Amino acid sequence: MTTDSPGRIHVPALDDILGKPFPVLDSGFVRVIDYMGSDESIVQAARVSYGKGTKKGRQDRTLIRYLIRHHHTTPFEMCELKLHVRVPMDCWRQWIRHRTANVNEYSTRYSIAIDAAQTTPPREWRFQAQTNRQGSSGFLDEEKGLRLSEREREVQELARNVYNERLEAGVAREQARKDLPLCTYTEAYWKIDLSNLLHFLSLRMEEHAQMEIRLYAETIGNEIVSRWCPLAWEAFRDYRVDAVTLSKDEQSLLRTLLREGPAAAVRKAESLEWLTSGDGKSVFHFERSEFEEKLAIMGIEVPWQKGPP
Amino acid sequence: MTTDSPGRIHVPALDDILGKPFPVLDSGFVRVIDYMGSDESIVQAARVSYGKGTKKGRQDRTLIRYLIRHHHTTPFEMCELKLHVRVPMDCWRQWIRHRTANVNEYSTRYSIAIDAAQTTPPREWRFQAQTNRQGSSGFLDEEKGLRLSEREREVQELARNVYNERLEAGVAREQARKDLPLCTYTEAYWKIDLSNLLHFLSLRMEEHAQMEIRLYAETIGNEIVSRWCPLAWEAFRDYRVDAVTLSKDEQSLLRTLLREGPAAAVRKAESLEWLTSGDGKSVFHFERSEFEEKLAIMGIEVPWQKGPP
Amino acid sequence: MTTDSPGRIHVPALDDILGKPFPVLDSGFVRVIDYMGSDESIVQAARVSYGKGTKKGRQDRTLIRYLIRHHHTTPFEMCELKLHVRVPMDCWRQWIRHRTANVNEYSTRYSIAIDAAQTTPPREWRFQAQTNRQGSSGFLDEEKGLRLSEREREVQELARNVYNERLEAGVAREQARKDLPLCTYTEAYWKIDLSNLLHFLSLRMEEHAQMEIRLYAETIGNEIVSRWCPLAWEAFRDYRVDAVTLSKDEQSLLRTLLREGPAAAVRKAESLEWLTSGDGKSVFHFERSEFEEKLAIMGIEVPWQKGPP
Amino acid sequence: MTTDSPGRIHVPALDDILGKPFPVLDSGFVRVIDYMGSDESIVQAARVSYGKGTKKGRQDRTLIRYLIRHHHTTPFEMCELKLHVRVPMDCWRQWIRHRTANVNEYSTRYSIAIDAAQTTPPREWRFQAQTNRQGSSGFLDEEKGLRLSEREREVQELARNVYNERLEAGVAREQARKDLPLCTYTEAYWKIDLSNLLHFLSLRMEEHAQMEIRLYAETIGNEIVSRWCPLAWEAFRDYRVDAVTLSKDEQSLLRTLLREGPAAAVRKAESLEWLTSGDGKSVFHFERSEFEEKLAIMGIEVPWQKGPP
Repeated sequence: MTTDSPGRIHVPALDDILGKPFPVLDSGFVRVIDYMGSDESIVQAARVSYGKGTKKGRQDRTLIRYLIRHHHTTPFEMCELKLHVRVPMDCWRQWIRHRTANVNEYSTRYSIAIDAAQTTPPREWRFQAQTNRQGSSGFLDEEKGLRLSEREREVQELARNVYNERLEAGVAREQARKDLPLCTYTEAYWKIDLSNLLHFLSLRMEEHAQMEIRLYAETIGNEIVSRWCPLAWEAFRDYRVDAVTLSKDEQSLLRTLLREGPAAAVRKAESLEWLTSGDGKSVFHFERSEFEEKLAIMGIEVPWQKGPP
Repeated sequence: MTTDSPGRIHVPALDDILGKPFPVLDSGFVRVIDYMGSDESIVQAARVSYGKGTKKGRQDRTLIRYLIRHHHTTPFEMCELKLHVRVPMDCWRQWIRHRTANVNEYSTRYSIAIDAAQTTPPREWRFQAQTNRQGSSGFLDEEKGLRLSEREREVQELARNVYNERLEAGVAREQARKDLPLCTYTEAYWKIDLSNLLHFLSLRMEEHAQMEIRLYAETIGNEIVSRWCPLAWEAFRDYRVDAVTLSKDEQSLLRTLLREGPAAAVRKAESLEWLTSGDGKSVFHFERSEFEEKLAIMGIEVPWQKGPP
Repeated sequence: MTTDSPGRIHVPALDDILGKPFPVLDSGFVRVIDYMGSDESIVQAARVSYGKGTKKGRQDRTLIRYLIRHHHTTPFEMCELKLHVRVPMDCWRQWIRHRTANVNEYSTRYSIAIDAAQTTPPREWRFQAQTNRQGSSGFLDEEKGLRLSEREREVQELARNVYNERLEAGVAREQARKDLPLCTYTEAYWKIDLSNLLHFLSLRMEEHAQMEIRLYAETIGNEIVSRWCPLAWEAFRDYRVDAVTLSKDEQSLLRTLLREGPAAAVRKAESLEWLTSGDGKSVFHFERSEFEEKLAIMGIEVPWQKGPP
Repeated sequence: MTTDSPGRIHVPALDDILGKPFPVLDSGFVRVIDYMGSDESIVQAARVSYGKGTKKGRQDRTLIRYLIRHHHTTPFEMCELKLHVRVPMDCWRQWIRHRTANVNEYSTRYSIAIDAAQTTPPREWRFQAQTNRQGSSGFLDEEKGLRLSEREREVQELARNVYNERLEAGVAREQARKDLPLCTYTEAYWKIDLSNLLHFLSLRMEEHAQMEIRLYAETIGNEIVSRWCPLAWEAFRDYRVDAVTLSKDEQSLLRTLLREGPAAAVRKAESLEWLTSGDGKSVFHFERSEFEEKLAIMGIEVPWQKGPP
């Protein structure tokens, strides 16, 4: 290992936005409070293994891409980011399930709850997704939306009034808060290393993540990580976000498609019971549908013409 | 290490209550789903270090007490408990801050939210504590309580109606839930090792913990851990829950009290600025007040007669 | 969630081998001490999200495969395994880097070190790999191996004699051990949940893992996990171990190969600088070589005939 | 929470020693590579709970002391330290058992092992402790030490020669290293938050920790943490390192001593079977002996005159 004195690492592009809030949703934000490390620290840590000095420039990019590709995660743990976030509590509930971060949250036992709940404009009420039981898809028409937003205002107003009445009556804050809406805003310091942050982003930028947390994840990724560790961010996008993973069966289908053509691939899919109905129909449908999505991403035509006749 | 075949460990006293819900609050519960290990496993793990077979009986108790006293936590990690809990979400928010457990929670993205929120009887509205900014102390009178409970009913009813209206309009469950009260019930499987469980209990059975989570912690401790690992539970109570820790200054005060009597102890406290006012008055008050509490626990009279003249 | 009383889960196939040591290397072993959960617990935890009872049989397999495919890891955390292992310390050093397990190791501060070090038969000395700087490849001839094994015996014997001399002179065990060989055996209890265990296995069964730890990982996987949670094990093999992940560039090459044929794919690879030399030659070689391996796994012919002319 | 832009936190006293190696043992060192946060960040995080701006100066010290006293650990997690260390592998084995740090270690699979093993001067061979089965106590005489150091040289030389012979024969580095002494030096980057670091230090600065790791812990504490977060360090020493914890029985003995005098305290100890022999003699001796140590720390005379008659 090198024994030169390194000095603290600074990333000017991140220093430029230190403390600046990036707005998310109607009243939320994300901002950088402090950080440790950079792309350079990742390289430095990876090179511990080689017992050699650091080679600069293009080699760094290649090395970082290799590390991401091969899931060598420990060098990314050498980078640490500390954010200040303002988030609706129902979104924060999902956020906090990631157990690998350090957290200090605004306490509504000590202090009066933040006087803001997330409001939904009339055009932003989302339909329940039909294919994905946990998701949403498309928007309700504005007329219905107006009514829903009006009722939202009513319930939020009543909840806040009741909260204030309790405080005025001398009720403890820890108890008074119990009927505030789940979407009441909270704030927190959230500190995490880059390896765990990328894992968080891969799950929360994903299309199945709820829209609200996805907006936060995208802001953290696109506005912050991209400036902080641009090489790691690029590699993460190329080899994780945009990668496609093929199961044994999918590899087999692809091979058949390549070697023997579309008709043989259809027969192969039939033999896997991906096309024909049966008692397990809907299930096998699922895996076929995932494969169709992967083919679409790769720009390869689905041999069974987007579904069996 | 011994190489005999051990077989799975069973604890009949815990088997007896497997699956049985212990009620907590108006609609919550805690019940054991499964477990691994026992007092015996703790002893077995501790004795790995000695390379010897297990001595039975009284020696086990002595060893477990030694381990707790000296914070040798790893043998307790060999025991694992899996609970099914039903908890108001605002209580669950505190619970989930303990990052060392495995969790699978009921999803209100997939499913309709549980139709129950924690309700407060008229006599159970608690006053804000004056000395402890985050706590509560005493109860409001019943007349005021009746009004507060009535308003609680109103806000919970409206929130549920609004939730149902949204679902009927086709709004996605993930969005519809946003204005439900924080005290809406949720359910989860929660799995944790005994070392981390004891740490959780030491924080959440503590008098400064919010009453709601304290009731859950006490149920887990008194009803479940006491049956599962009685020796560990006894040692935990003797050496953690009921222990008193004295700082350097407190040791010095105690020594003065013992050797030179109450008057000298008062002079000592004065020299530490614990009794006299000054710009730091309220602060030093705090540490003195903690010491007074410790003396009370130990049954030793406070030399300055419960406060300076 | 269901409120029926579940009883503890038992897996007869695993009960059959409880306590039985599976030998690894010349003197090591792995054996199951206890466990919690099964395939059924994974399904049970996943279905918490649905608020429904458990559907049996084929649906369980489909659900578990879905969970593995989509990296929904928390249901697998509901299963816990406790092993007793005997491992050379240099192998244990790699093992213990996985921070998510509970560990109680034999202490050579308390006890005399285990009188066994891993020995290498004359035919098992491995050559340094040329392409992979951290690996090995092929075996030295027996004549050289005989000499190396003889010298191994010498150094192990001297190290043990010196250790014993120190103990006889009254030196503390914690200090006496300092010159024992790195490959001295140790023993430990090692407890981990199934999600983290599968992650451990995916890294340590991998071809780049050192042979010694790979033998342990394969024993744990093939002998133990396969009996304990056969559905999870099957899904893990199909969707993790045998899966192939394609980067953006690899997807693009595959599409070109499929749509426009081998010659176009070669031109594409050239445009990516994967085939032509340059200052970054060796590096791009790396990613090309990985792609060639993936094509081989999928049974697809490499369009540039296993390398540029 | 405040929304002012904070800028990165710098600690000039720590900047002064950035990169500077503090020597430990014959060839080891510890040096700071980077850090995040300071005493100020702890205060800032703690005040999130209050929803107020930061009050300066004396109040900070008081708040930090309160946090340490009451085991409010999360604000300390906002500080992060990254070290470069050089440590004998047998010491590193103990170090790495703390699972809460990020680690990148020098790889002897990739690179030739560092050509240094910890050597023991003739006067530094330690006797096995009699009372504490895992410790050491006092030194062997120089004559015996000379012989032991000479034999140490022999075994280290042979091990290194054998290692080199293997490399020359083309044996893979991952296999060649297997008979190097446990005390061969390794190097690593080690990154940890302040809360976990203080926990590490409390265990490894403790008198029962092995001398080698204690020297590293003391260097990290006294040379680094003391400069980095002086208020946290001071509070840690006053309320953790120098604190005394009394069990229920010990409190009772102390009360008796204070209220009724030494003779009554002796009778109390007898009733607890701490003084009289019996089948559990040695065990109760243990707890009595711990209490005697605590009395000594507090400067209180042992009522049974340092042992029963």
